[in-house]
Amino acid sequence: MFRKLLSLDEAKEVFKRNFLPKPVGVESVPLSEVGNRVLAEDIVAPLDIPPFTRSMVDGYAVRAVDTFHAEENEPATLEFCGYIAIGELPTVTVKNHTTAEIVTGAPLPKGADAVVMLEYAVRQDNTVLIHRPVSAGEKVMTAGSDIQKGETILEKGQISHSREIGTLAALGITEVVMYKRPKVAVISTGAEIVDLGEPLLPGKIYDINTFTLSAAIRECGGEPTSVGIIPDEMSQLKRALKKTLTMMDMVVTSGGVSVGPKDLIPQVLNTLGKPGIIISGIAVKPGKPTTVAVIDGKPVFSLPGNPTSALLMFYQLVRPQIRCMTGAYEKAPPIVKAVAEKRMFAEKGRRTFVMVKLTGDKNGQLIASPAALGLSGAITTLAKADGFVEISEDQQFIDAGDEASVCLFNPEINREGRKIGVSSSFTRNDPA
Amino acid sequence: MFRKLLSLDEAKEVFKRNFLPKPVGVESVPLSEVGNRVLAEDIVAPLDIPPFTRSMVDGYAVRAVDTFHAEENEPATLEFCGYIAIGELPTVTVKNHTTAEIVTGAPLPKGADAVVMLEYAVRQDNTVLIHRPVSAGEKVMTAGSDIQKGETILEKGQISHSREIGTLAALGITEVVMYKRPKVAVISTGAEIVDLGEPLLPGKIYDINTFTLSAAIRECGGEPTSVGIIPDEMSQLKRALKKTLTMMDMVVTSGGVSVGPKDLIPQVLNTLGKPGIIISGIAVKPGKPTTVAVIDGKPVFSLPGNPTSALLMFYQLVRPQIRCMTGAYEKAPPIVKAVAEKRMFAEKGRRTFVMVKLTGDKNGQLIASPAALGLSGAITTLAKADGFVEISEDQQFIDAGDEASVCLFNPEINREGRKIGVSSSFTRNDPA
Repeated sequence: MFRKLLSLDEAKEVFKRNFLPKPVGVESVPLSEVGNRVLAEDIVAPLDIPPFTRSMVDGYAVRAVDTFHAEENEPATLEFCGYIAIGELPTVTVKNHTTAEIVTGAPLPKGADAVVMLEYAVRQDNTVLIHRPVSAGEKVMTAGSDIQKGETILEKGQISHSREIGTLAALGITEVVMYKRPKVAVISTGAEIVDLGEPLLPGKIYDINTFTLSAAIRECGGEPTSVGIIPDEMSQLKRALKKTLTMMDMVVTSGGVSVGPKDLIPQVLNTLGKPGIIISGIAVKPGKPTTVAVIDGKPVFSLPGNPTSALLMFYQLVRPQIRCMTGAYEKAPPIVKAVAEKRMFAEKGRRTFVMVKLTGDKNGQLIASPAALGLSGAITTLAKADGFVEISEDQQFIDAGDEASVCLFNPEINREGRKIGVSSSFTRNDPA
Repeated sequence: MFRKLLSLDEAKEVFKRNFLPKPVGVESVPLSEVGNRVLAEDIVAPLDIPPFTRSMVDGYAVRAVDTFHAEENEPATLEFCGYIAIGELPTVTVKNHTTAEIVTGAPLPKGADAVVMLEYAVRQDNTVLIHRPVSAGEKVMTAGSDIQKGETILEKGQISHSREIGTLAALGITEVVMYKRPKVAVISTGAEIVDLGEPLLPGKIYDINTFTLSAAIRECGGEPTSVGIIPDEMSQLKRALKKTLTMMDMVVTSGGVSVGPKDLIPQVLNTLGKPGIIISGIAVKPGKPTTVAVIDGKPVFSLPGNPTSALLMFYQLVRPQIRCMTGAYEKAPPIVKAVAEKRMFAEKGRRTFVMVKLTGDKNGQLIASPAALGLSGAITTLAKADGFVEISEDQQFIDAGDEASVCLFNPEINREGRKIGVSSSFTRNDPA
């Protein structure tokens, strides 16, 4: 009756041997839509940035040598030879002892090799008095000094945030090859689950996992598809899973995996393809009944029906796979150091996860407090928690006052959506 | 010629006196689309969670008192009185010395007050041997023990991530009142700017700011609308700004604000409404020419054309306003402590921002290195930088080895899109 369960690490090993997560394809995306997506190719600059040598200030384009003896009270006297407009090819050439007025960003005219700031020059009709010397290249940005044509400027695997997008725009790149988002199906099972919007009859509860798991999949870069609630009935489960597997890159189900008589998922998973179930229960708390199968090259994660357990196991097993499949570099959610508010006990022989909420004390020290007392069934545990503390199999408890590493559900959580105190790594300012 | 500029703090004060950022309205959003949006109302539970008292395990529903004398070798003997199916109202009642088989999540039948785990019970025909005593309430989750009907479970101003969405789903809430995203117009000006996709004629550069600013606006919760490039021509600028102001909550322009002859934006901003320009230049580097106006209750931020300066001033002045207008709690981007790799100098009398990239040394210490050497014009400065270091007006420099607070552009930057070393507050694991 008490079969030996795989430890979490063993389970991860077994999974690794059966499935290698990798990007599911690439697609060309218009620049306006690349935000927060992953580059599938190195970006090699097709042109110099700036494309031409330009002035960095408003002033006078000069040959530096003509200004070397200039002083506050003994200015160099140059002949005015014209204006350099911005956005056009200069028509004038700056010859010995001449200068042309130029604005920020305008192309440096032939002959000139530096710019004197407006503040240090005074124009008198056709002559310009320069009150400060400049050296060659001063206040000038040379063509290609920022990005050189042919240079690899962004790397495959990088996420395009506002700044990367700016670089792409500077290079005139309008379409970018990005990794496709992995398609992940979300299936809920259980005779007690009803769709939102339907009346809640006695003994029923609303479908939570479809929404939490879909949101979590989206948050880590996947593209969730909600299949909805499938009744605990062999042929229907089989049909739904078969169909879904053909269309999706991964399937995540919840419910129907504990030892109850109606738990058919494990039976179904072994009838759909090879190798079938590779992990059947894990020595963790919560999340013990978690079952994992690989079916003809596609993973199926069958998580417990309990929303907290389901989401926790999602973070442990599913999220890292999805992150790899997005093609992005980094896979680990951020971890912050905190001090345990009270003693947190581990379940003997099982890797235990305790949902905690974070608050900051007056010294800016982060405090981790259990988000619920033992009720792994509690939905509010989820909403109250900022992350979880992990207690290893050989550890009995984390004591009050001990340092605890908290794995955050959302890095944003510390700056958005929650009132947490100032921490060592996050501060809050007043707007403007 | 050297007029006294406002310091950054003075500028923020002036702005505060002229504009109070607040949410721009609310709208009802279907649950499937509330991800990452801001709650505009407290959520009060319309029902108990769980809605009924349910078993937390697979086992036997009992009256605890009937098991008090049970022992491993002297089990309590109870009469089997039926099955409790999940998702239905129980038909059986557990009377003295009787028990009903029950599965996880099924409603506790009348009479029963606890559940004995399957592992500790053995059924023999019509009798069930209980080998362990249980106390009242054991392995049972009482109706409303998680969320009580009428309880305020989520707060106005919270961002709905996967976990908050789970709570809403549990309560059967299908539509949520969320704050509207503030509409922010993005306008680029400058005779040298050309649209992406167009040929890059001599003296021209591509429009970068439309893309960087739009992405940055979206990243902080605003809804950007790109107006595109408006020529440096009085009447066209005037028409574009007038039209935009009627449709948007805020306008952000870039270019056309330095002291060059073609810089018309300041002139235009004083002709459109009251009070007009309230900030005309700020003692910062980069970003000095930044001009801010409030026109009939709507802010217009005119940022420098230089992409790095524009985005930096966006983070300083614009982002906090947008964050407030989204209705979310927290406004400050995260700050991490790092050690300065080399000495970073400040511009005399001006708040100086140095773009830095972060790397981790072997001890996990974050190192901040300048992302570019002086070239505030450099576009790559942006792409290379993870954030910026602030040097106050009265400070000459931050020395090599000094601790520097780095304001991050994206909190995700440390776990996505960039290869940075392990830091004190972020770690990376292998997937699975």
